[in-house]
Amino acid sequence: MKFTSIRPAPPVFTLLILFFLFSGQVLPKPGASDSREPHLADTARCLPEPNRAVVASPNPIPWGYDLWLNFEPLDDARLKDAYREAITGMYMEPVGATGQIVYRELTEGLGSMLERPLESLPAPAGMKSAEAGLLLVATWDRLPRFIREIMDRPEIPAEGFLIRQVRAGEKKHLVLTSADDAGLLYGAYRLLRLVQTHQPLDGIDLLDAPKTKLRMLNHWDNLDRTVERGYAGFSIFNWHTLPELRDPRYADYARANASVGINATAVTNVNSNALVLTAPYIRKAKALADIFRPYGIRLYLTARFSAPMEIGGLETADPLDPRVIAWWAAKAGELYAEIPDFGGFLVKANSEGQPGPQNYGRSHREGANMLADALAPYGGNVIWRAFVYSEEDPDDRAKQAYTEFAPEDGKFRENVLLQVKNGPIDFQPREPVHPLFGAMPETPMLAEFQITKEYLGFATHLVYLPRLFEEVLQTDTYREGPGSTVARVVDGSLHDKPLSGMAGVANIGTDINWTGHPFGQADWYGFGRLAWDPNLDSGDIAEEWIRATFGNNPVVVSRVQALMMRSREAVVNYMTPLGLHHIFDSSHHYGPGPWVDEHSRPEWNPVYYHQADSLGIGFDRTSTGSNAVAQYAPELAERYGDPATCPEEFLLWFHHLPWDYKLRDGHTLWEGLGLKYQEGIDTVSGMLSDWQGLKGLLPDAAYRDVEMRLGIQLQEARWWKDACMLYFQTFSGREFPEGMEPPAHPLNYYKNLKFPYAPGIRPQWD
Amino acid sequence: MKFTSIRPAPPVFTLLILFFLFSGQVLPKPGASDSREPHLADTARCLPEPNRAVVASPNPIPWGYDLWLNFEPLDDARLKDAYREAITGMYMEPVGATGQIVYRELTEGLGSMLERPLESLPAPAGMKSAEAGLLLVATWDRLPRFIREIMDRPEIPAEGFLIRQVRAGEKKHLVLTSADDAGLLYGAYRLLRLVQTHQPLDGIDLLDAPKTKLRMLNHWDNLDRTVERGYAGFSIFNWHTLPELRDPRYADYARANASVGINATAVTNVNSNALVLTAPYIRKAKALADIFRPYGIRLYLTARFSAPMEIGGLETADPLDPRVIAWWAAKAGELYAEIPDFGGFLVKANSEGQPGPQNYGRSHREGANMLADALAPYGGNVIWRAFVYSEEDPDDRAKQAYTEFAPEDGKFRENVLLQVKNGPIDFQPREPVHPLFGAMPETPMLAEFQITKEYLGFATHLVYLPRLFEEVLQTDTYREGPGSTVARVVDGSLHDKPLSGMAGVANIGTDINWTGHPFGQADWYGFGRLAWDPNLDSGDIAEEWIRATFGNNPVVVSRVQALMMRSREAVVNYMTPLGLHHIFDSSHHYGPGPWVDEHSRPEWNPVYYHQADSLGIGFDRTSTGSNAVAQYAPELAERYGDPATCPEEFLLWFHHLPWDYKLRDGHTLWEGLGLKYQEGIDTVSGMLSDWQGLKGLLPDAAYRDVEMRLGIQLQEARWWKDACMLYFQTFSGREFPEGMEPPAHPLNYYKNLKFPYAPGIRPQWD
Repeated sequence: MKFTSIRPAPPVFTLLILFFLFSGQVLPKPGASDSREPHLADTARCLPEPNRAVVASPNPIPWGYDLWLNFEPLDDARLKDAYREAITGMYMEPVGATGQIVYRELTEGLGSMLERPLESLPAPAGMKSAEAGLLLVATWDRLPRFIREIMDRPEIPAEGFLIRQVRAGEKKHLVLTSADDAGLLYGAYRLLRLVQTHQPLDGIDLLDAPKTKLRMLNHWDNLDRTVERGYAGFSIFNWHTLPELRDPRYADYARANASVGINATAVTNVNSNALVLTAPYIRKAKALADIFRPYGIRLYLTARFSAPMEIGGLETADPLDPRVIAWWAAKAGELYAEIPDFGGFLVKANSEGQPGPQNYGRSHREGANMLADALAPYGGNVIWRAFVYSEEDPDDRAKQAYTEFAPEDGKFRENVLLQVKNGPIDFQPREPVHPLFGAMPETPMLAEFQITKEYLGFATHLVYLPRLFEEVLQTDTYREGPGSTVARVVDGSLHDKPLSGMAGVANIGTDINWTGHPFGQADWYGFGRLAWDPNLDSGDIAEEWIRATFGNNPVVVSRVQALMMRSREAVVNYMTPLGLHHIFDSSHHYGPGPWVDEHSRPEWNPVYYHQADSLGIGFDRTSTGSNAVAQYAPELAERYGDPATCPEEFLLWFHHLPWDYKLRDGHTLWEGLGLKYQEGIDTVSGMLSDWQGLKGLLPDAAYRDVEMRLGIQLQEARWWKDACMLYFQTFSGREFPEGMEPPAHPLNYYKNLKFPYAPGIRPQWD
Repeated sequence: MKFTSIRPAPPVFTLLILFFLFSGQVLPKPGASDSREPHLADTARCLPEPNRAVVASPNPIPWGYDLWLNFEPLDDARLKDAYREAITGMYMEPVGATGQIVYRELTEGLGSMLERPLESLPAPAGMKSAEAGLLLVATWDRLPRFIREIMDRPEIPAEGFLIRQVRAGEKKHLVLTSADDAGLLYGAYRLLRLVQTHQPLDGIDLLDAPKTKLRMLNHWDNLDRTVERGYAGFSIFNWHTLPELRDPRYADYARANASVGINATAVTNVNSNALVLTAPYIRKAKALADIFRPYGIRLYLTARFSAPMEIGGLETADPLDPRVIAWWAAKAGELYAEIPDFGGFLVKANSEGQPGPQNYGRSHREGANMLADALAPYGGNVIWRAFVYSEEDPDDRAKQAYTEFAPEDGKFRENVLLQVKNGPIDFQPREPVHPLFGAMPETPMLAEFQITKEYLGFATHLVYLPRLFEEVLQTDTYREGPGSTVARVVDGSLHDKPLSGMAGVANIGTDINWTGHPFGQADWYGFGRLAWDPNLDSGDIAEEWIRATFGNNPVVVSRVQALMMRSREAVVNYMTPLGLHHIFDSSHHYGPGPWVDEHSRPEWNPVYYHQADSLGIGFDRTSTGSNAVAQYAPELAERYGDPATCPEEFLLWFHHLPWDYKLRDGHTLWEGLGLKYQEGIDTVSGMLSDWQGLKGLLPDAAYRDVEMRLGIQLQEARWWKDACMLYFQTFSGREFPEGMEPPAHPLNYYKNLKFPYAPGIRPQWD
């Protein structure tokens, strides 16, 4: 809001430079630490000079709150003229709350980017004689007749839109139309993005619609505002002050989601709290639903299976018990009385200690169907998570979800969706796809991805996740022969499912920029775009996001895109190369802990996953081992089952191999491991220097923030290499390969690092 | 940063109005709830229509991040011309980090407000011939000679400054000078505020300096970012990403503090965690200290008395044990090696379960002096909190601090300050002053106030606290005869103490506007101003803050000031009228709980404090009771000791009186109680309508936020009246007085209200 906030950058830079010249004497001396307590901070060697924060905010306008919806004036004058000619004024009747939003977004967004207030024309009457370049915005049936007469009625699917330039006599007009309000909203955001990213409008004829029904965020947010696996601060949902206090942030959150096509959100943790289903909390939830509704977003809540006992006063939660059935039916009625478009329940049952039907000797199917029957009268869904592994079953954890659910195909109610994580273990930097994809032709399915970086370096690592999502979506399951990609499971086309989609575990928190790492915004954005169309290209999405966020400078666009696109392979290499997985330190999952072996259940220990011994390393999931490969279609089972054909990126996921096993490049497995770790580090150090090469071409606050985080990422990449290679060396007994930087500290140093207050786990007051 | 963010407001308002016309159909129906679970939300009747958040952010630039440092262009053209004439250009050599900040703030602030880049003149050479209206900024010894020749050398105290218009021949120039960097910094912010608040500069000759040495914030922030008694989100201090990640917010925080003269901060909870004294955390703290330093702020940490055992490997923390003494000495050395200007330790010992010297049969004095000796070589202070009450001692809690510390006067080291809460109990809406003020002539003292609203409605009540602070500061202790005000204890003049000041428990959190309630910013601002000069007028401070925050529109200034000034008496009336105290619901202190009596220790139960019975109500602290009055100077003891002379605002604090006791206005005590509660409610409802009368004259986001919060405040004021009067009626057995609105629910409804996730207490995951 401040005058200084719109002054041209140069003077500020001059001041910064001036500052660095003069401020030498306040630079903290780097110098080695004399401390004995082992701690990551001891390895902090590679960071940019640390006194920048002193000049962080000459005038404090925080960066990043407006995300990719920062409709800055176009700097390209010729382009601006072209758009001004294509759009001279707008005709729109703002109908309803959604219509109001569309009207306001177009008026303000185009007005801002074209630096000319968008004239709004009144009644359709004078329209025929209107100036050329009229923007007409309305659902088809509300379009002025003279336009409908010109256009042949288009087939626009639900939530879809058409942006077409039409010719009325001599004049060209731009039409944005749809079958429903949601489509108009999505079309408006698309039109704004076309201008934002400098796309031509002349002769445009763009029909688009979401390929999926359900495009959903899952918030692992607790009622006390802590966020499980949250690294961007705390929960934006302040349950204590709801329903009376409606933080503008709730609407800004809905707006951001709508702008990328997200149409559903579960705002409470899957490790759930029954209290959210009590009347006072339902009224709080209603306040959120009322804010989300005009943005086309349906609210879901997580249902704790034992709620009938905890808040219902029953002594059982047995899904076949009539009282339990009646309680859930009544609860559903109570919910829909307050929230007529309530989406339904997201349920984590009999997993990691959560209550569920199995506590009563009932199956997942029986539990899910009972809840589904309660919601069915109101059109609600049950989203049942397939992330389960038995407390007793000694079998390979990677197999258990498939074993549990595959036989149940076709036995669920129509309004039950099975939510399946992208891989069979747990959101690792890289996993093979989950064997359930394509394996349940009769069951509606949601693919679950994690946008928050639990196993990918928290909010301090730059890892462009849509690259990972794309790899999963484009994987061929062969379930219906070649071309049976996960994308076709997600969009429902593989088995003609009317109901399907994608769920993403949100990376959103109270940080002013929403996601902690500025590039976390790209993961949120990209998730939404891929949920809209799972066949989009992650590189195109990156380019879109960069242009919308940082502007259209071609140098910035190409360099930042290149940096993003290689970031995902980098994290795989410096954390878990060649198919290694789940070797993270326990509970907080911050940093390496391949040595951890003290937990009661085998699959809670990293040693269970890497199986390193004097002979070799890796998890044998072939017929000689757990035979998890057999859960895939024959084509994949065969390929993964033989080290010779198994992609090296999955080698140690499926095979236990000797340290001297020869990789395709001729290196031994041991050498290859070390060189992969090194490769990851080298990539990150390249990312940092590439970023530093963009200084001055980016918003200063964002530039410095990302630079600091890349410094941390580089330091932690080295930490991973040192800790893992030193530990694995105790088994391999071999020298580190040439080309691998020697570790900075002995193994015990890394084993002794403790992070009692790492974010994302239960807070502990002392 | 967005073009739309600086477009004139009107279009937006039009849109808003349009929106309200069209959006009827999304308005949630209010309607009575059919739920049986008792909950505050059931009483939500009086709130503004709830769908506003839907239009909260047509373009999301969050309000309030820049606090009172929002240097908007002056709207008064004549005034702007006058300032432009008085300040045509600036001469300043930006020396050091602080000089850089001063230079940048003046250049940007004046440039923004006067809408004209402030020309910066180079060498002093051409100065004599310079244009009129030169702004000269330098510590005295660096001022150009021609100016020093004109001026007689002023006596400027440490941290003080002089702003004087001087005449050089025909020309008038403006001089900002000081004895030190801090003074220059404070002078720069003062000069900016003079312009911001439309004060004349012509003929100005303003010499000002802080009246206190120590002007300090205490953050009750935990290392996991939860904040004890925090209601504005979570801790802004992200220990996990420090020291590498230097959030610009750290500098913005320091800047805000410096702008009101705060020069010290303790960033960790007094219920402390020894981990903060380990090497890794000291390096994290160093990063903060480096950022704070150029803003004139010294960093303090809280010292857990048992740290030598918890992180030092000793089996004792006995302050007289040589190993313990040596450990603390070494730790001090370690701290000062990293943070040369480290402020020292803030200690809560043997209070509410915290470890301390008494665990070893040693006195507070012995504990404090041991730590003081460790810090003395480096010039560090020990700030020892007087907030103690014995685990066993059955005596009146209000007496215990005095009993414990008064006899120790003169026995502490010179670098020990005793930190005394403003009242003898615990930050109540109103308390008599603490009897220790003025009672320890030989002991450096800090007055501790709570800026966060633990007992004042959290961040949803508008209560202007400087009014409360002023009442305490202006209270006469009579310790050295009439005129021995608490202000003179705070500024050290009562007993000529070189070291003294004020500490405030911060209300700062991760909320974008820092304080949750927009008016919480005024409490932070006002605390700083009163710590600078404890004799300032709270009304003047309010006016300053309003002008700096909301602009100089006289209607806004006068109405908002009036609203703020009566807000404090309102909360006393609707929570704890006539001297009632500590009748809050347990642990979270959110809302009334006068009936609570189940806690093990008497003084943890509200019933202990109101002593209501069939005969009457109130705590007898006269000679017939605990005789706490005897701890005050005779003048006060006498006045408070007799109901006839005791101010009615303290009546039930000092006396147990019959329900039919006649108040000065002729009402019985019972009637008066009910009418006071009603008066509090009526004041709040007046505040709400006054606020609504300002719609359109205030930033829209701030207007709506405050309106929602006032709605909650009104609802909760009624809650207090209903709950307390229904409960006290069970003793008085009398009808409610005429003029008191009847309660909305029966007593049990209020007793059953539960708030498991009220903020500010230990989070609990389920």
